[in-house]
Amino acid sequence: MKAVSIKNLVKKLSNLGLESLGNLYTKNNIPKTEQIGELCNVLLSLKGEASSIALAEEIISAYTKFSAEEKTEFFQYLETGIGTDLNTIELAISEFLANRTQDAVQAVHKASESPRLELFRALNMASMGTQALISMRADIINALPSNPGLSVVENDLLDLFRSWFNRGFLEIRRIDWETPAVVLEKLIEYESVHEIMGWPDLRRRLEDDRRCFGFFHPVMPYEPLIFVEVALTNEISSNVSDLIKQEVNKNKNSSYNTAIFYSINNCLKGLRGVSFGNLLIKQVVEQLERENSSIKTYSTLSPLPKFSSWLKTELANINFLGTESKDRIAALLEKPVADQLENSELKKDLLGLCAYYLLKVKSRGKPACPVARFHLGNGATLGKINWLADESENGLNQSAGIMVNYIYDQSTLAHNHERYGQEYAIVCSADVRQLLPA
Amino acid sequence: MKAVSIKNLVKKLSNLGLESLGNLYTKNNIPKTEQIGELCNVLLSLKGEASSIALAEEIISAYTKFSAEEKTEFFQYLETGIGTDLNTIELAISEFLANRTQDAVQAVHKASESPRLELFRALNMASMGTQALISMRADIINALPSNPGLSVVENDLLDLFRSWFNRGFLEIRRIDWETPAVVLEKLIEYESVHEIMGWPDLRRRLEDDRRCFGFFHPVMPYEPLIFVEVALTNEISSNVSDLIKQEVNKNKNSSYNTAIFYSINNCLKGLRGVSFGNLLIKQVVEQLERENSSIKTYSTLSPLPKFSSWLKTELANINFLGTESKDRIAALLEKPVADQLENSELKKDLLGLCAYYLLKVKSRGKPACPVARFHLGNGATLGKINWLADESENGLNQSAGIMVNYIYDQSTLAHNHERYGQEYAIVCSADVRQLLPA
Amino acid sequence: MKAVSIKNLVKKLSNLGLESLGNLYTKNNIPKTEQIGELCNVLLSLKGEASSIALAEEIISAYTKFSAEEKTEFFQYLETGIGTDLNTIELAISEFLANRTQDAVQAVHKASESPRLELFRALNMASMGTQALISMRADIINALPSNPGLSVVENDLLDLFRSWFNRGFLEIRRIDWETPAVVLEKLIEYESVHEIMGWPDLRRRLEDDRRCFGFFHPVMPYEPLIFVEVALTNEISSNVSDLIKQEVNKNKNSSYNTAIFYSINNCLKGLRGVSFGNLLIKQVVEQLERENSSIKTYSTLSPLPKFSSWLKTELANINFLGTESKDRIAALLEKPVADQLENSELKKDLLGLCAYYLLKVKSRGKPACPVARFHLGNGATLGKINWLADESENGLNQSAGIMVNYIYDQSTLAHNHERYGQEYAIVCSADVRQLLPA
Amino acid sequence: MKAVSIKNLVKKLSNLGLESLGNLYTKNNIPKTEQIGELCNVLLSLKGEASSIALAEEIISAYTKFSAEEKTEFFQYLETGIGTDLNTIELAISEFLANRTQDAVQAVHKASESPRLELFRALNMASMGTQALISMRADIINALPSNPGLSVVENDLLDLFRSWFNRGFLEIRRIDWETPAVVLEKLIEYESVHEIMGWPDLRRRLEDDRRCFGFFHPVMPYEPLIFVEVALTNEISSNVSDLIKQEVNKNKNSSYNTAIFYSINNCLKGLRGVSFGNLLIKQVVEQLERENSSIKTYSTLSPLPKFSSWLKTELANINFLGTESKDRIAALLEKPVADQLENSELKKDLLGLCAYYLLKVKSRGKPACPVARFHLGNGATLGKINWLADESENGLNQSAGIMVNYIYDQSTLAHNHERYGQEYAIVCSADVRQLLPA
Repeated sequence: MKAVSIKNLVKKLSNLGLESLGNLYTKNNIPKTEQIGELCNVLLSLKGEASSIALAEEIISAYTKFSAEEKTEFFQYLETGIGTDLNTIELAISEFLANRTQDAVQAVHKASESPRLELFRALNMASMGTQALISMRADIINALPSNPGLSVVENDLLDLFRSWFNRGFLEIRRIDWETPAVVLEKLIEYESVHEIMGWPDLRRRLEDDRRCFGFFHPVMPYEPLIFVEVALTNEISSNVSDLIKQEVNKNKNSSYNTAIFYSINNCLKGLRGVSFGNLLIKQVVEQLERENSSIKTYSTLSPLPKFSSWLKTELANINFLGTESKDRIAALLEKPVADQLENSELKKDLLGLCAYYLLKVKSRGKPACPVARFHLGNGATLGKINWLADESENGLNQSAGIMVNYIYDQSTLAHNHERYGQEYAIVCSADVRQLLPA
Repeated sequence: MKAVSIKNLVKKLSNLGLESLGNLYTKNNIPKTEQIGELCNVLLSLKGEASSIALAEEIISAYTKFSAEEKTEFFQYLETGIGTDLNTIELAISEFLANRTQDAVQAVHKASESPRLELFRALNMASMGTQALISMRADIINALPSNPGLSVVENDLLDLFRSWFNRGFLEIRRIDWETPAVVLEKLIEYESVHEIMGWPDLRRRLEDDRRCFGFFHPVMPYEPLIFVEVALTNEISSNVSDLIKQEVNKNKNSSYNTAIFYSINNCLKGLRGVSFGNLLIKQVVEQLERENSSIKTYSTLSPLPKFSSWLKTELANINFLGTESKDRIAALLEKPVADQLENSELKKDLLGLCAYYLLKVKSRGKPACPVARFHLGNGATLGKINWLADESENGLNQSAGIMVNYIYDQSTLAHNHERYGQEYAIVCSADVRQLLPA
Repeated sequence: MKAVSIKNLVKKLSNLGLESLGNLYTKNNIPKTEQIGELCNVLLSLKGEASSIALAEEIISAYTKFSAEEKTEFFQYLETGIGTDLNTIELAISEFLANRTQDAVQAVHKASESPRLELFRALNMASMGTQALISMRADIINALPSNPGLSVVENDLLDLFRSWFNRGFLEIRRIDWETPAVVLEKLIEYESVHEIMGWPDLRRRLEDDRRCFGFFHPVMPYEPLIFVEVALTNEISSNVSDLIKQEVNKNKNSSYNTAIFYSINNCLKGLRGVSFGNLLIKQVVEQLERENSSIKTYSTLSPLPKFSSWLKTELANINFLGTESKDRIAALLEKPVADQLENSELKKDLLGLCAYYLLKVKSRGKPACPVARFHLGNGATLGKINWLADESENGLNQSAGIMVNYIYDQSTLAHNHERYGQEYAIVCSADVRQLLPA
Repeated sequence: MKAVSIKNLVKKLSNLGLESLGNLYTKNNIPKTEQIGELCNVLLSLKGEASSIALAEEIISAYTKFSAEEKTEFFQYLETGIGTDLNTIELAISEFLANRTQDAVQAVHKASESPRLELFRALNMASMGTQALISMRADIINALPSNPGLSVVENDLLDLFRSWFNRGFLEIRRIDWETPAVVLEKLIEYESVHEIMGWPDLRRRLEDDRRCFGFFHPVMPYEPLIFVEVALTNEISSNVSDLIKQEVNKNKNSSYNTAIFYSINNCLKGLRGVSFGNLLIKQVVEQLERENSSIKTYSTLSPLPKFSSWLKTELANINFLGTESKDRIAALLEKPVADQLENSELKKDLLGLCAYYLLKVKSRGKPACPVARFHLGNGATLGKINWLADESENGLNQSAGIMVNYIYDQSTLAHNHERYGQEYAIVCSADVRQLLPA
């Protein structure tokens, strides 16, 4: 934002009837981020009057033109320049300590609310305001490591988003070849589990024997929040590369008995911490059941993103493997190439280690594997561990090419879910249990 | 809800994997409102898991079948049974008092948040959940007079609605004869300023020389939140009855120079306190400007809902009127019929009183007339006071048939708005000022 | 169209680059209908160039302002002023007579095509052109009795409409309370079997236990071409007045076993002769089957619009009734009031006559009753004849209050349809057959 | 279609109540194309009854599975097996020759109508029927060279399509990045003037400084019939390669003064002969004028597809060029590579020849260049001839890289159009005229 556009802003401000304040900002010795910060205070003072919208547009437009440094300065302003009034909160606290009524609690809650929340609500009134706030939070997340103090600002936004992106406001939509290109290109952008290699690959993933569903918020109709990719097949897939490369089944009337959830992706960094995944999977299962009575099995084909790194750290401490085995594994971890996986001893050892990792290795009581935590927490069953299931470089690096099927079985889902909730109990198939080393 | 449906509920609960809790509710000696209340606690404990949706549906479905008494019992449960944990808040407060950081403020804010908010967010996940919560708040508002303690519950809902019904999430939509009937019948239901006498009257208000716009929230596409009715004319209307009865202008190409905002109505009692009106009027002005370059004047034709009742109380204290005048006015207030308004003395006195009421009578510094407060606060100009402008029974009772034009003039709106904001300054035309008694 | 608008037209024409022709029409001694007729010739000469659209708009706009007399003059112009070139057709005929090839047939067909078809296709390019042509044909139908020569013009339009309103271009749409009011008011306007008494009656016919479906053409999204009204019940209704007055079934989850088609109405006079009814009924049956698996019986509750008038003419010739019976019937026909229908002799005689009328009375081999022809032709079964089924004035006048159920049974529909097609065979229930007089 | 599916067909036929006919087709010695042909006769005999739809679906489904040979056999069946009844037409002709009334003309027209038209109308009732008929005509066009007799069938379809694809039934739609991918991929498929090299190239053509519009028919919402590509610029582009490669103008608020129509493509071979192009260009001009008041110039950047081939044939006969010039040109035609175009003598000669070709070379009175015929016929002005304007292989081969700007100027369009219509007058700029050799 150059001097001239500050002038422009002042002019617009004066059109909003805010001359007196506006005049301040012509003094060029005040940094522009601070000026915009001050405008935020003006916005707060307008208390939702109609002119707020125009001012919110100004602020957001100025923000989007900021450099990374300016953004950080602006966030620091938000952190320190727009804080709660300590007097008010102390007053409310005294009142609470005196009589502990619900009214007093409510008063404490109100007094301790960050005015930033009100500011963000005002900014949301601008057109594309919600999108702007989401990318503002993404920017803050990026700035956090070197500015840990910004976490209070980031938390305020998270609070708002949890409320605004309530499942009751979201729509589930099928994504297919009739979907606008502007949405489809986002699948290419956001697919991080199994990269989409351009439009022909994308199109293949949207053919008649595939399904893709996403959650959308009505104010951002072209922005998927999360999406899941499903393959309709006639067996539980054990190899994701094959699944992705598979020829299209041209027989329109063929009936499938299995749905494989092979990829699920959150899209917007700015919505990190607002969870949609468990709801999406269950709703897609329900939708497919309605549409496709022939489908009897719902399974994922899931990665083990932390398996290799766990192995690297813990291999030495594993006491059920001999030196020879460990050396073989260490060599593989060093240089994970598909050729080495031909070795049947290695296969036996690694599958055993994988079963051990999934069933026995815990972090704060829960499975150490984050993907396992997610699906088991949803009530899925750990169904099968697949050897040579993902031969991509990423797959070999992360988990020596191993992938896992988690089964979503409606008849046991709720019960598993409850047991997991109570004691982090893991329900798994006999096949998997047999892989466990003695 | 009969015993049998409790059983049904328990069965459904056990389908959700919640047997252990579910079993509790088969004991018939626990009142059902309390049982549903307990289910609310279960819902809270699920923390947004997929099964929450089904449970939320159950609770809302049970709620809608409650009698008024049961609803009140349920609200009382929400008031007292689902409260903040005082220990947690005390802990957070100690921490805050010890070091007064922003993190500590945020912790206090979080600890003092009513778990009802989380509960309402969970209920919102049910289909039609938002509508259910809105009518829940309307029910609470109705129950408040005899249960003042419920205000904490009502406040919690208001907090949520202020955030959810942020202008950024609303759509402005034109309402006309191509609008679904299910929306149109709501205009008939909610129009309380100038009653719509059935479908032919409604249709007349949606003809080519009329405009109607409303705000809608995307999850309730058939539910206007607020709507405004506008007449396109070639003069500033001074009589609303004429305006409503006026024949349709059949000449499609005629150009209008004036837009009269003759009615604005909030629709949902459950959204009381969430304000949309100022935003709607200004956006409609902008929309009409874009669409209709010939329109130069934007004016309301507004009621004075409290004028007569103010007169009744204060007439005796007015010192600029003689006894004769006061007697005439008192007679009219006693029996407000149109015939009496022929008297030119009465007319002169009442118009003077009305100017006085609008310009001089204040309540906490602001104009006593709520309609004046609204439009002047928006930056409108008090343009004209009209005699014999609303001869309906209601019009005669409320304001002796007088109505007011507030002018929305883009060139002065912002400036007026600011002056009103600073000192409640009222900008009015010379015509109105001349009516003021010496 | 006044002189001044002719001038206007000429000016517009000259904007279209048609000055030379345009000049002709400033001579005021040429009647305006003829002038517009000449413009039609200009339009034809443009052969679909882009300027055709503007000219078509002009002609249609002029037409809509014509008085009834002017319209007839204009039609006469179309009849005589825009005819086939006889030379061309004779040439094509000679060619055909010489060698009888398919090419020659095609040439004869082309040469004998009325240029009016091309004209109407050109007019259709105007916005709302299709609607204008449909109402033009309605106007011609009205003018036909006194201008039988216009039937060639009317036939040309019918030819076009048969092609344009091909079922492949129509959409079936459910009509309910979420339908735009502009469509709903047309139901009130076009319902001629069982009059809709205002909006509350309309709304009742669109409640959860009712269905209404119509065919629409995409260029006229607010204009139903035909619609059918269906009641979901738990028995085959025998009385239409009861059906229409019936309270709404508030229990949303109730399942129905019967669908009663109680009214079907063509909407646009200008589309007379383009038939949609048989297709609509069968598609609605299919749609309800998909949506509502509990419905097992599909039946009409149909009027006998010509029964009384047939009786009046033929009663004397009926030889299976005694004098007393005939006198009773004659008295009723004279003054058809509900009271008289209490007489059980009369009931027996009339039901017998009705069965006789439906099963035995023919017109050119087919049933004399047009409603019977329609439903039996579709393959329906004559299921039941109902006494005191329509006590409206219209019902008493047309058919002494008798109505008929035709059953649409998918398992026999095709077979019945074929038999009717081959020999006008009527499939009827034993109940009806028993009513037949010996 | 194998024996088994014939059986299937017969079974379906018998479900339609058509056993007696169906039985015929179990005899395997009747070729299946003839069997399907016979079914067409059955379809005709149904005269639009509801069962027609199911039968139409069968026929179209069978057709789509035909090999190319079977399709041709089927067309031959349509040519010879479903013809006009000569007796009927002779009778109508006698009647006409006897009294030459309009009724008689109409009767001749009716009698000479090919029953194939009725058949195609019946087939159109199937879902996707219109698409099937369009591709049927494309198949016939492909088969025509070796089966010239099929032209009668092809003509029948063309007749229907001219009526069905009347401009009044088409929608103009903007195509941009929010358009469904299924439509966008058709642009890639159908763009034949300036090939679209994959999705990134497509996306660039749909950015903010580009426009694309197409005509669509409501029954084929994903099938553009014709589309035009427009670039918004600040000068009349003289080089199409630059235009296509140009960087996106990221400044959203920039205003353009020129719209360049650089590509227009018909999409469906089966609609050949149904013209949309002139209407589309003029409507896009109008739409851009409404949307973008800053645009003052509307110009094409058009190819000369036949220039080189004309040169090859006629160069020897040109008398205003010397031998040296002709040799240079002949060498270029032999091997059209961009390097040679550096020669300024060659440039001068070729631009002169091009002006001569456009202004003086005629075919049946009209310009020999088909693109010139199209735009000049629309009333455009021949504005500029551009050297080195299309350096693609195609551009060099067809027209030595030369391209032409035709200017669409609203103020002269109608007048030019009329003059062209009367005497094929070509309106051109002084620049172009100066290029003409003496």
